[in-house]
Amino acid sequence: MAPDLLRRLAAEALGTGFLVATVVGSGIMADRLTDDVALALLCNTLPTGAILVVLITLLGPLSGAHLNPAVTLVFALRREIDGGAAAAYAVAQVVGGIAGTLAAHAMFDLPLLQASATLRTGAPQWLAEGIAAFGLVFTILAGLRFRSDAIPWLVGLYITAAYWFTASTSFANPAVAIARAFTDTFAGIRPADLPGFIVAEFAGALLAMILAAWMLAEPRKTLETRPAE
Amino acid sequence: MAPDLLRRLAAEALGTGFLVATVVGSGIMADRLTDDVALALLCNTLPTGAILVVLITLLGPLSGAHLNPAVTLVFALRREIDGGAAAAYAVAQVVGGIAGTLAAHAMFDLPLLQASATLRTGAPQWLAEGIAAFGLVFTILAGLRFRSDAIPWLVGLYITAAYWFTASTSFANPAVAIARAFTDTFAGIRPADLPGFIVAEFAGALLAMILAAWMLAEPRKTLETRPAE
Amino acid sequence: MAPDLLRRLAAEALGTGFLVATVVGSGIMADRLTDDVALALLCNTLPTGAILVVLITLLGPLSGAHLNPAVTLVFALRREIDGGAAAAYAVAQVVGGIAGTLAAHAMFDLPLLQASATLRTGAPQWLAEGIAAFGLVFTILAGLRFRSDAIPWLVGLYITAAYWFTASTSFANPAVAIARAFTDTFAGIRPADLPGFIVAEFAGALLAMILAAWMLAEPRKTLETRPAE
Amino acid sequence: MAPDLLRRLAAEALGTGFLVATVVGSGIMADRLTDDVALALLCNTLPTGAILVVLITLLGPLSGAHLNPAVTLVFALRREIDGGAAAAYAVAQVVGGIAGTLAAHAMFDLPLLQASATLRTGAPQWLAEGIAAFGLVFTILAGLRFRSDAIPWLVGLYITAAYWFTASTSFANPAVAIARAFTDTFAGIRPADLPGFIVAEFAGALLAMILAAWMLAEPRKTLETRPAE
Repeated sequence: MAPDLLRRLAAEALGTGFLVATVVGSGIMADRLTDDVALALLCNTLPTGAILVVLITLLGPLSGAHLNPAVTLVFALRREIDGGAAAAYAVAQVVGGIAGTLAAHAMFDLPLLQASATLRTGAPQWLAEGIAAFGLVFTILAGLRFRSDAIPWLVGLYITAAYWFTASTSFANPAVAIARAFTDTFAGIRPADLPGFIVAEFAGALLAMILAAWMLAEPRKTLETRPAE
Repeated sequence: MAPDLLRRLAAEALGTGFLVATVVGSGIMADRLTDDVALALLCNTLPTGAILVVLITLLGPLSGAHLNPAVTLVFALRREIDGGAAAAYAVAQVVGGIAGTLAAHAMFDLPLLQASATLRTGAPQWLAEGIAAFGLVFTILAGLRFRSDAIPWLVGLYITAAYWFTASTSFANPAVAIARAFTDTFAGIRPADLPGFIVAEFAGALLAMILAAWMLAEPRKTLETRPAE
Repeated sequence: MAPDLLRRLAAEALGTGFLVATVVGSGIMADRLTDDVALALLCNTLPTGAILVVLITLLGPLSGAHLNPAVTLVFALRREIDGGAAAAYAVAQVVGGIAGTLAAHAMFDLPLLQASATLRTGAPQWLAEGIAAFGLVFTILAGLRFRSDAIPWLVGLYITAAYWFTASTSFANPAVAIARAFTDTFAGIRPADLPGFIVAEFAGALLAMILAAWMLAEPRKTLETRPAE
Repeated sequence: MAPDLLRRLAAEALGTGFLVATVVGSGIMADRLTDDVALALLCNTLPTGAILVVLITLLGPLSGAHLNPAVTLVFALRREIDGGAAAAYAVAQVVGGIAGTLAAHAMFDLPLLQASATLRTGAPQWLAEGIAAFGLVFTILAGLRFRSDAIPWLVGLYITAAYWFTASTSFANPAVAIARAFTDTFAGIRPADLPGFIVAEFAGALLAMILAAWMLAEPRKTLETRPAE
């Protein structure tokens, strides 16, 4: 493995790890400190949005900061990353994400290995995940087209909103979903409910890619604007 | 219809749809999770402010990201958009907004078609909506004059503040108001109360346009600074 | 009066008016919706910080967006505004601020004219106001020196913090303090307590000006770096 | 002492003082106003994140705005600050931090001198502090490499997240930890628990420095990209 790919994978693993540690850890902290579930979700949302801005700013130049297999798939289909690297990215994201869950458990003095019992299933939840991932991928692709320097902020703010406007609190990320199946705390998801979430997330991501291909296409040159031959 | 106008209308519909889905969806989520109305309103405010930054950044280059018939009217009066396109924008905004309400209902497993029973009427509410729209349009016009790159942030922050300093929680947008009449949840407004809100919003927007024309005018050249003839 | 000064005064009055309407209005809204005083103060803080970013960005190019007689005094002492204009600024700020209080009352359907009964006095409060104004003026002067484009954000974030770290919730502004004496709601201050606040605010502002003159001075040229004569 | 070093030390002391006054003061304010500990921590978090953006923006050009002996140590090991100045920085940070605690006590009318009784110890807490400081130093070093203008925001957002995802609420700063031992309020730490925190913070900082040296290294020039000789 070339040293550069190794560093890119380290960036993906480290970033997904910090992202999941934030999602899981802030959920544990909030849940311990209050009985108000809206307040707990707010104290879960703001750290997640904040760390996303940090991680994407810092790791973007190293690996692209996908931190998300659905995002990596979209870039692979757009031929901006080759298939082997994309597969390695997905593995690094899942492994890093699970390590993030374990780190949160260790910091909060909980059993390291857990399985979630939180039921998250049914068509409305899947629709919510599909919309969540659709919006995330559209945000990234339109951001790349118009304001690539702003992508860290756009993703952080999008997820801040999507935590609340989707009924599923917007996982929008198969690696994060898998890592969240390993914690029986505020942010968990029952392992049996993973497939529905993951399918919905990939579907939403692909739909966004298709819509973006049309909406964000460069305007075709007309006769008038074409340079004289 | 030229492909470009079609894409601009798609951008207006998609953007207003995500805006309304955020307003309505986050209201439902917050209302379900807490009994504290201030906390629910805060959890309605922050996602709305956040998604506005995202939507205006990404859709601004496509359609101008008006997402609001009062804003479109102001640009039409300033002859920055022609009348036919402006009318089509307004239709796209209303249709997109209503679709956003339906999407929120579907995600939260609620009946798709609803009518709000939330009373929002009376002179203080209309004054509040007038001030809300006045501030929004002044923000956009002064932003265009001095810091057009900052407009997404300025609008997001302005609405974050206006949710709280106006007694009406600052709809400030006729298309969003109409879409909110279709939901009997936290963010709803009784259909019978729409006309008062909409008139106040257009009035506030026009007042801001008039004030901005004076306050933001380029300084007139004096004899001393006029180039020699 | 030259048209330019008139527009600058309009900007100061409009800006201070929106600032006070936000402080007072969001206080009324929050106080109505929750019994938790910390939550009410948070819902008072975030709109205030947000509107400051908007107002200073948009009105800065017109009038400097002082919105604060203590800031205007500092600029007058630094000879960046002449005495007559400074006095007119202060009047516009106070008049605009009081109009903001009245607008909040009208929107929330409250008696327009009120006097606050909220006691805010004693040495700890005065120390808090002094530190609040010290930090505000230091923020502005150091911002002007190093990152003038960032001043709107720096002031908005500083006040967001100062609402909480000062025992007085950081009025830090004589015009805003006067306007807040006219409301017997969450954000009010007893008229009899104004003098202590105002003296402390001017004192803190002047101290910051003195410290900044030393800390922010351009490094003196040494023999080595002086150009050859 | 050269005047420049004196001003740098003043910047470090003033900045650490305002940082600690914000941490301690907002903790006192929040704790007085609510019984909900999650809400109190949120009202402690947001002011801290906000003031960090302000302080690092304004003091960065003067002293680097380390405000943290662990950060100063890392820069000393990287030979970006000499040993004597680094030692003086650490003293200024600790003295400034303690002054910040005293200022918060004075503003909130509390006994100036206190010792905390809040137990914060054990391996999970130390792991949390190590991760907190690791993330902080990695954020600073990667920020310097890729987006140095964004460091104030990155640090403010990182700490906003770390307040919640670490079980220790992320002190991540030996000077701030020492200053927080002097207050028996919300943000305090028992003096006897300081050594564990401080060792963990330095360890995390050094680990981040080692990882950053590998991950952020400039790519080695290959034969192809080497300029012709």
